[in-house]
Amino acid sequence: MKNNGYNLWLQYTDIENSTLKKKYLSQIKNIHSFGNSETIKACVEELERGFSGLFGDDYFLDKEASNNVLIIGTISNLNDIHQKNLKEDVLQIKKDGFIIKKIEINGNKKIVITAKTATGVLYGVFRFLRELQTNQPIEQIKIIDSPKVDVRILNHWDNLDRTVERGYAGFSIFDWHKLPDFKDPRYLDYARANASIGINGTVVNNVNSNALILTPMYLEKVKALADIFRPYGLKIYLTARFSAPIEIGGLKTADPLNEDVKNWWNEKVKEIYKYIPDFGGFLVKANSEGQPGPQDYDRNHVDGANMFADALAPFKGIVMWRAFVYSEHNPTDRAKQAYTEFVPYDGKFKDNVIIQVKNGAIDFQPREPFHPMFGAMPNTNLMIEFQITQEYMGGATHLVYQPKLFQEVLEADTYRKGKGSIVAKVIDGSLHNKKLTGVSGVSNIGNDINWTGNHFLQSNWYGFGRLAWNPYLDAKSIADEWLRMTFTNENDFVNPIKNMMIDSRETVVNYMTPLGLHHIMATNHHYGPGPWVGNLSRPEWNPVYYHKANEKGVGFNRTKTGSNATAQYAPEVEEMFNNVSTTPEIYLLWFHHLPWDYKLKNGKTLWNNIALKYQQGVNEAENMISSWNLMEQYVDESRFKEIQMMLNIQYKEAKWWRDSCLLYFQQFSKMKLPDGVEKPNKSLNYFQTLKHPYAPGIKSQW
Amino acid sequence: MKNNGYNLWLQYTDIENSTLKKKYLSQIKNIHSFGNSETIKACVEELERGFSGLFGDDYFLDKEASNNVLIIGTISNLNDIHQKNLKEDVLQIKKDGFIIKKIEINGNKKIVITAKTATGVLYGVFRFLRELQTNQPIEQIKIIDSPKVDVRILNHWDNLDRTVERGYAGFSIFDWHKLPDFKDPRYLDYARANASIGINGTVVNNVNSNALILTPMYLEKVKALADIFRPYGLKIYLTARFSAPIEIGGLKTADPLNEDVKNWWNEKVKEIYKYIPDFGGFLVKANSEGQPGPQDYDRNHVDGANMFADALAPFKGIVMWRAFVYSEHNPTDRAKQAYTEFVPYDGKFKDNVIIQVKNGAIDFQPREPFHPMFGAMPNTNLMIEFQITQEYMGGATHLVYQPKLFQEVLEADTYRKGKGSIVAKVIDGSLHNKKLTGVSGVSNIGNDINWTGNHFLQSNWYGFGRLAWNPYLDAKSIADEWLRMTFTNENDFVNPIKNMMIDSRETVVNYMTPLGLHHIMATNHHYGPGPWVGNLSRPEWNPVYYHKANEKGVGFNRTKTGSNATAQYAPEVEEMFNNVSTTPEIYLLWFHHLPWDYKLKNGKTLWNNIALKYQQGVNEAENMISSWNLMEQYVDESRFKEIQMMLNIQYKEAKWWRDSCLLYFQQFSKMKLPDGVEKPNKSLNYFQTLKHPYAPGIKSQW
Repeated sequence: MKNNGYNLWLQYTDIENSTLKKKYLSQIKNIHSFGNSETIKACVEELERGFSGLFGDDYFLDKEASNNVLIIGTISNLNDIHQKNLKEDVLQIKKDGFIIKKIEINGNKKIVITAKTATGVLYGVFRFLRELQTNQPIEQIKIIDSPKVDVRILNHWDNLDRTVERGYAGFSIFDWHKLPDFKDPRYLDYARANASIGINGTVVNNVNSNALILTPMYLEKVKALADIFRPYGLKIYLTARFSAPIEIGGLKTADPLNEDVKNWWNEKVKEIYKYIPDFGGFLVKANSEGQPGPQDYDRNHVDGANMFADALAPFKGIVMWRAFVYSEHNPTDRAKQAYTEFVPYDGKFKDNVIIQVKNGAIDFQPREPFHPMFGAMPNTNLMIEFQITQEYMGGATHLVYQPKLFQEVLEADTYRKGKGSIVAKVIDGSLHNKKLTGVSGVSNIGNDINWTGNHFLQSNWYGFGRLAWNPYLDAKSIADEWLRMTFTNENDFVNPIKNMMIDSRETVVNYMTPLGLHHIMATNHHYGPGPWVGNLSRPEWNPVYYHKANEKGVGFNRTKTGSNATAQYAPEVEEMFNNVSTTPEIYLLWFHHLPWDYKLKNGKTLWNNIALKYQQGVNEAENMISSWNLMEQYVDESRFKEIQMMLNIQYKEAKWWRDSCLLYFQQFSKMKLPDGVEKPNKSLNYFQTLKHPYAPGIKSQW
Repeated sequence: MKNNGYNLWLQYTDIENSTLKKKYLSQIKNIHSFGNSETIKACVEELERGFSGLFGDDYFLDKEASNNVLIIGTISNLNDIHQKNLKEDVLQIKKDGFIIKKIEINGNKKIVITAKTATGVLYGVFRFLRELQTNQPIEQIKIIDSPKVDVRILNHWDNLDRTVERGYAGFSIFDWHKLPDFKDPRYLDYARANASIGINGTVVNNVNSNALILTPMYLEKVKALADIFRPYGLKIYLTARFSAPIEIGGLKTADPLNEDVKNWWNEKVKEIYKYIPDFGGFLVKANSEGQPGPQDYDRNHVDGANMFADALAPFKGIVMWRAFVYSEHNPTDRAKQAYTEFVPYDGKFKDNVIIQVKNGAIDFQPREPFHPMFGAMPNTNLMIEFQITQEYMGGATHLVYQPKLFQEVLEADTYRKGKGSIVAKVIDGSLHNKKLTGVSGVSNIGNDINWTGNHFLQSNWYGFGRLAWNPYLDAKSIADEWLRMTFTNENDFVNPIKNMMIDSRETVVNYMTPLGLHHIMATNHHYGPGPWVGNLSRPEWNPVYYHKANEKGVGFNRTKTGSNATAQYAPEVEEMFNNVSTTPEIYLLWFHHLPWDYKLKNGKTLWNNIALKYQQGVNEAENMISSWNLMEQYVDESRFKEIQMMLNIQYKEAKWWRDSCLLYFQQFSKMKLPDGVEKPNKSLNYFQTLKHPYAPGIKSQW
């Protein structure tokens, strides 16, 4: 049977190294599970599924065995003797953390997988299976690991009609029409996949929300999903449309200070918890891109968020309140608006509110400097929002390994409490001692058989989950794990392809938006280049707003002589970005408008650098094809060919980006392409007239 | 691994009967193929795929064997000695028909699969595999079979944005955005599945057409599909938007008699054939439901269809011109309009035009009398259009085995050349000696992993293909084949479930539209009952138009005292339908408006009969659950449970239909529900206020 990728990184293929397999088998003769919660049952099922794949026909349980067995259960359900043995280790676990430990009791060897919670045990089970999948030794296994972040959550921008805003992997996996009675087996596999990487929450509907999701007909459906997800420790959250009290509640206002409105939300929340006793809470996009919000009633974000917080608090629910706001009526640099609106409210939000901040101040570009809000609200819970789905990075046909991008942001130093105040410390709450922390990712999942449209982009879902669990992990080691689990443990495959993945993020920056360029994609669908677009109604929707190319130069001056967005950073960072010579060249045109003949550190002009970066991106995209083509022997035919086709599309579109951007900017630079840069074989007019009305992922009615 | 249904009826599971398996293996020691076309290569691949599944590890090719071998090739490519041996048999093949025959030459036993065309050989290969899948003896195998119809074609109502009008199995399998460079492996499997049942054509875009499909950007994509489909004998057709010369051609008119317009289409067709040398032709919906057409220029259907015919003729392309027309400006009974518009043009259409007529005169209802156009145009090519997708039959959640419906229509007697002039004879061309014949089916295929949303509805795709090949087949024997190939050969499974399938069509009629009621579904999405709807702008879009219920009675008088639609049938049929006592009760209210207390043949009132039929439908839906629940041992867990969930939805919705229709009609009948009919537990108002804005399959922008 061909491998269609449905099983993601949980391939559980037969262990090829037969010596190793025998060793494993000699140490796992039986499974003893303690406790009978649905989660513990899921643990046993997952182990059986895993073993039957990894060991194939060689595996059978020896029901009598008490030596070389696997012990599964929460610590409180284990036998006294196990509890005693693990006493010290248990002290090290936090939250849903787990222990995997080889112990010996009365001459019997055991591997214990335990935790304080059943979900923790499940995480331990998946971790143990990963050790086997990646062929790690287990003779002396001792792993104690705990999540560093509370809320590790996917945001599905999925509409009720199953279209997915910014979705490139088909349509929504959530088939609302057939729910609650038809439970697609996929829902269970979705929960399994998330649990396997520690994701513990999911917002199943679009931030551009539809109030209908809060009506009984839909809550019945949401409940059906919640019941499937629960054993896997996956909590359901919903987006709340701010105007729902009007739209489905029959009220005349949605003013957050109005008693009827408050009461309506209180009752609505109570109703939701009747359906879903462990409902996670709301994600709210308010007063942003046309969405209703408290400002419609001259109230502010605090008024809005706290209203929801009060309703949810009795049930331990939380409010994730998005900071992605900018107004067409505000002529200020869009990059500044979120900080300006939110930072003054520091300390005003309730304890169960967490402000959800995109990784950068514009919008999920191939590269952005870290958002200035990170570290700037010491008295407010604050979580990060990444976009796993590739709205601005070629949709599903471009191989971009995003954990590299995530890591770059997490490692960025905010200097808010001096050097070393990196974003990861803001996010895990350690910088300002926060009690509620979170990492969210806009899902790249759809109903394509392989979930993410492109087999390789499964790694972004995987890597997101791993970094949400531990924001200090290295993207490269995550790629290593993922490749071994998804394809093979052959080093001759893993090593070169790992490098290809790691490099892929810089590649997309090079062929799309090098040197700090940003938001020069085509309109609405954001598919392909559109640096020439300048006719959209809102100025900050136009690429020309962002690159400001003219005969004098190119780039957005955000220093004190410009929009002064740099002032939103800590002084050390502000200073670095204000000075063109200390600004890292990767952010050059993000912060500075520079002449075309400005000399970069390599002694070449800005124009030549731009052109050479685009060419480099193209070359790298081409090299990815060569690297992949050498791997045919290691990968099943079907996945090999599909990935190959995708890489060819990426290369083709990298050239499209290079040619159209260089032709466009050349109008202003009036300079020749440097040696080594291929001449475009189409005219600028050709590129400008390309139309893709049915490119996927557009915003639609929801 | 769980069975997700992706492999359809081509499951090729291990043959359980080991004696039989050994017997098969002893007779198939090797494959000798002759010819090296892509189609013959596909034949060999399919045999290898089939054998490796059916025989598992027991199968290996003996490359040396010349006794007990399989011979594959077109007759002209076989050795002389084979050709001689099959001389008489070959005379019996028509079109892409095939021969499967056990022969003995010089003491060597061989099974030859041959045909005049490579596609015929492929059909023979699939037929041979089916014999093995259904455990038929092959010792003396001799099968000679030819398709009775030329064009056996699916119509995909798939839009370029991948929404599917009347689609209930997810979204379009055609991912236009990623084509032509990304060729989803699914396209190949789609072609394989179609070839396996003899389907030889596919219209890949919606009849409500978008002219963009005819632009070079899309033709490149269509070509990529055509190249994948070609080896499987599957031709591509497109819908042609009548106004394309204006929309994409820059002309001011689309008048079919205008020279520029004709010329534009001639050039467009030439261009298409450059991309796709075996392009099949156009399907056109013109002057119907708002689509542009020749009448916009005071021309008629002949003018329109023949314009396309002239453009396509040099390339042997055809025009399928839909007869599904009705006008909001025409107050005549909608059922009469197609006949009235088309029959006068009999003999005026070119030879490569074929008029595509829906099976009934309204629109794919659970039951309709056959369309009066069948047999009424002796000098015009005429094909039938079935709707495999269940627009009016509960979407994908209702198990309705449609070949039973198809068969009912095909067996209906038109009396156009005396008794026995059944629709099948019109369709296969034998009644009026036609040279171009066709059967089309509106596809129920989507990107759900199992293709059709509900595993059982794969049987409708399968059964459609089988009946298109031979419109005289029996639905029950088709169900038998399908069940054996898709699930198991166990008679204790096949026999009861076959009966369940056969009965399922009458069940849906009973709980939706018994006794000739029709088109009383909810508006637009047609999901659920809506007999009360009477406020739509066009009268013939309203259910009240079709049932005409009032205090006096219910039903549409189409006799000579009414709309006189009966006059469009042959005199024998007209007479039968005009007389209430000779009208089959299944069509009663289709043709007659009758008092609520009218006595039917069983002596009970019309009202009681209606009520009891609804109840019967509900009971039958409930019985399907019981039948299925007994089958757990024969079916893999995943498919068993999914089907079970679907049957539960069907039962729930059958009750919804019964209760809401009976409550509604009871307002007029003012009669009590008879004994045995359950009392509704919700009010009519409750049912009337249900809203399903995101029910799938609605018409959208295309």
